Amino acid sequence: MTVRLTPENAAHLLERLRESQPLVQCLTNAVVTNFTANVLLALGAAPAMVDVPTEAGPFAGIASGVLVNVGTPHAEQRNAMLEAAAAAHAAGTPWVLDPVAVGVLPVRTGLARELLHFRPTAIRGNPSEIIALAQLGTGGRGVDATDSPESAADAAALLARSTGASVAVSGVVDLITDGSHTIRVANGHALLTRVTGGGCALGAVTAAVLSLVDPDDPGAILAATAAATLVYTVAAELAAADAAGPGSFAVHFLDRLHSLDAATVADQARLA
Amino acid sequence: MTVRLTPENAAHLLERLRESQPLVQCLTNAVVTNFTANVLLALGAAPAMVDVPTEAGPFAGIASGVLVNVGTPHAEQRNAMLEAAAAAHAAGTPWVLDPVAVGVLPVRTGLARELLHFRPTAIRGNPSEIIALAQLGTGGRGVDATDSPESAADAAALLARSTGASVAVSGVVDLITDGSHTIRVANGHALLTRVTGGGCALGAVTAAVLSLVDPDDPGAILAATAAATLVYTVAAELAAADAAGPGSFAVHFLDRLHSLDAATVADQARLA
Amino acid sequence: MTVRLTPENAAHLLERLRESQPLVQCLTNAVVTNFTANVLLALGAAPAMVDVPTEAGPFAGIASGVLVNVGTPHAEQRNAMLEAAAAAHAAGTPWVLDPVAVGVLPVRTGLARELLHFRPTAIRGNPSEIIALAQLGTGGRGVDATDSPESAADAAALLARSTGASVAVSGVVDLITDGSHTIRVANGHALLTRVTGGGCALGAVTAAVLSLVDPDDPGAILAATAAATLVYTVAAELAAADAAGPGSFAVHFLDRLHSLDAATVADQARLA
Repeated sequence: MTVRLTPENAAHLLERLRESQPLVQCLTNAVVTNFTANVLLALGAAPAMVDVPTEAGPFAGIASGVLVNVGTPHAEQRNAMLEAAAAAHAAGTPWVLDPVAVGVLPVRTGLARELLHFRPTAIRGNPSEIIALAQLGTGGRGVDATDSPESAADAAALLARSTGASVAVSGVVDLITDGSHTIRVANGHALLTRVTGGGCALGAVTAAVLSLVDPDDPGAILAATAAATLVYTVAAELAAADAAGPGSFAVHFLDRLHSLDAATVADQARLA
Repeated sequence: MTVRLTPENAAHLLERLRESQPLVQCLTNAVVTNFTANVLLALGAAPAMVDVPTEAGPFAGIASGVLVNVGTPHAEQRNAMLEAAAAAHAAGTPWVLDPVAVGVLPVRTGLARELLHFRPTAIRGNPSEIIALAQLGTGGRGVDATDSPESAADAAALLARSTGASVAVSGVVDLITDGSHTIRVANGHALLTRVTGGGCALGAVTAAVLSLVDPDDPGAILAATAAATLVYTVAAELAAADAAGPGSFAVHFLDRLHSLDAATVADQARLA
Repeated sequence: MTVRLTPENAAHLLERLRESQPLVQCLTNAVVTNFTANVLLALGAAPAMVDVPTEAGPFAGIASGVLVNVGTPHAEQRNAMLEAAAAAHAAGTPWVLDPVAVGVLPVRTGLARELLHFRPTAIRGNPSEIIALAQLGTGGRGVDATDSPESAADAAALLARSTGASVAVSGVVDLITDGSHTIRVANGHALLTRVTGGGCALGAVTAAVLSLVDPDDPGAILAATAAATLVYTVAAELAAADAAGPGSFAVHFLDRLHSLDAATVADQARLA
C-alpha cells in the first residue's frame, strides 16, 4: 500500500467536494452547530443537523457522511448518536467521531467508548482527548490542546490500530495516522483556537472529504483525513493574514473556504 | 378583495415594524437560533426564544407573532411547539410554520401535520418541503431547494386553500400565494443559501410583519407575507454586493437589515 | 472596608485574566452559547459548556468560575444547573446567575429562586429581571431593558443584601451594588442591545473576572463584578466606533476584546 498525500491529491479532493456537494449529517454540540453548518456551506457541502432519535438512524443511511461530536451530550442526542453511528456502520457511510473532553467527564467518556463499537472511519481530537480515548491517560481540562500532537503520537497510533480508524490530532502541526503511516500538516494559525468550533468544524469537513473516497481503501481514507485538515488549515492561514482578531478571522475564514481553489491548496501546502 | 403588494406597501410595513418593535417568539432549530435572533434585532423586532413547555403556551398569548420551525425537533421542544401553536391559534396571534425537511424525516413530518390543525397564518419553506407538506410528494434530501418555486406552485396553492395559510416558497424567484392570488419576488442572492438559517430567519421576519396587519384580512396577510420576503431579499441583495463570500455576506446582511430604509425597499423591489 | 474600583484596578484584572486564562463553565441558553464562548475566547479565558447532569456538578468543582443563565431552561439543563450551582457553592467556585426573563415566565422563575439557595457570587440582569428576582415586581416583557438601571437600584440593593451577591444591572449606565456600596459604569453602546447575547456574554465574563479575586473579600467581589462590566463596555464602545451596524459591530467587538489592553481600559473608563 502506498500512502501519500500530495498537495495535488488534496487539491483534487477539494474540486470533487465542490462538484458532488456531499450531504453531511452532523450530530454535534450546541455551541458550534451554527459555525459547523456555515463551514460546510462555505466549502460547498450540504449540512443537515439531524439528531433526533428515529430520524438520526435512517438519515445516516442517506447521508454522504456523518459527524458525531460529543461536546454537549444531552440524553436524547446520545440516543440519536448511537443510532446514527450504528446505521452509518451498517450502511457503510463514513463517519467521524470527535471525542470532545473525553477522559475528564463521565457521560461523554462512556458514550465515546460505546460509539467506538461502530468503528468510526476517522477520529479527530486534541492531544488530551486522543490520549484519553486510547485509555492511556485521563485527558486534559476540557477542550484545550495543552499537549502537542507529537506527545499523542503513540496514543493515536494505538487508537488507530485498535479501532481501524484514521486518527487526526490537532495542534500547531497536525498529525494524522492510521497506525502505520503518519502524515503531518504544518499549515494553520493560532486564531483558529480563539474561535469556538475551530476544531469541531474540521470534524464535519473530514466527514465530507471521506465521502469522496473508497471506504475499503485504508490508504485513501488516511489521505482524505489529512486532506481535510490541509484544506481547512490553508484557509485558516489565509484568513489570519487579513484578520484583526478572532471576530474578523471567523468571517475571513468562511470567505476563504468558499473561494479557496485547488491551485492555492497545492501551492500553500506544508506537508511532512 | 384586492390583493396588491406595491413596493410602497412593503416599505410602509418596514417603517411600522421599526416603530412597533414586535415581540417575536421563536421555537426554532438549534442551528439557526442565534442568527434568527440577530436578524430580528437588526431589523428592529424583539426576539424571545421561549420554547419550554408551560412557558411556551402562555407566552404565545403575549407575543406579537410566533415562529415554529421544526428543524431539530427534540421531544421537549415538540411539546412546546404544540402548546405555542394551540395558544397562538386561540389568542389570534399570527404564527408561521417552517416545515424544515418535512417529507424525508418521520418525527417532524408527523409534528408538522399535527401543527397544521392550529391553522398557521403563514407557511414558509423550500419547494420540496411545500410539496411534501401538501402531501403531493415525499420531499427532497433535506433542507436543499432542489426544485424551483414554480414546480411547487400547485402544491403551494393547494396547501394554502386547505389550511387557510398564506404560503411562501423560497427560491431564485420567491412565490407567495393564498391559493387564489400569487405574488412573486425576484430579489435576493445565492449567498443567502450559503449561510445556514438564510431561509429559517425569514420565517421569523414573516411572523414579525404579520403582527402588523389585520388577522381577519386575507389580502393583508398575503401582502404582509410577501412584504417580509421582499424586505429580507432586498437586504440580501445589497449585502451581497459588498461581500467577498458567505462570511462577510452574513455580516453585511445584518448591517443592511438594520440600515434599510423604506425608500430603498420601494426603489429596489422587483415584484411580479 | 474600602470599596473602590479604579480604572487601574480594572485594567490590572484584565492583565491577570489574560495570564491565568480562567476556565469558565457556562450553562447558558441555546441562543447565545456560541457568542458567549467566542467572547470568552477573545478575551483570553477558556469556555467549557458543560451542562449535562452528572458532568455539570463535578466540573463546577474544577472550573475557575461558573455561569448559570436560565434563558432556555430545558428540563435536563435545569437539573444540570442546580447540580452545578450546588457544587460551585460547596467548592467555593465563584458563580454568576443571569435570571433571563424571570418574573414573566414560570419555569425559569421557580428555577431562579431555587438557584438563589446556592448563593451566587454575582447576579447580572436587566432592570426588569432584577426587580422581578427581588420580588418587587413582575418583570418586563422578556429580555428587554425597558426600565433604567436607576429604577432598579432599590431592588438591586435589596437583592444583594438578601443573597450576599453583588448585583449588576445593565443599561445605558450600568449599576453594580453589594447593597451598601454602588459603582456606576457609563461606558457602552446601544449596538450591544442589537446583538443577541450582548448581556448574556457579560455574565460569563463576570464569572471569569470573579475567579481572579479573593472569594471571602466582599469589596473585591464588588470591584471585580464592576471591572467585568467596564472591560466589556469599553470594548463595545471602541467596536461601535468602527461598526456600520449590528453585524459588523459583533465582529469588531470580538476583535476589540482580543486586542484591548490595560492602558486603554484605564484611559477610556467612565466610572461614577
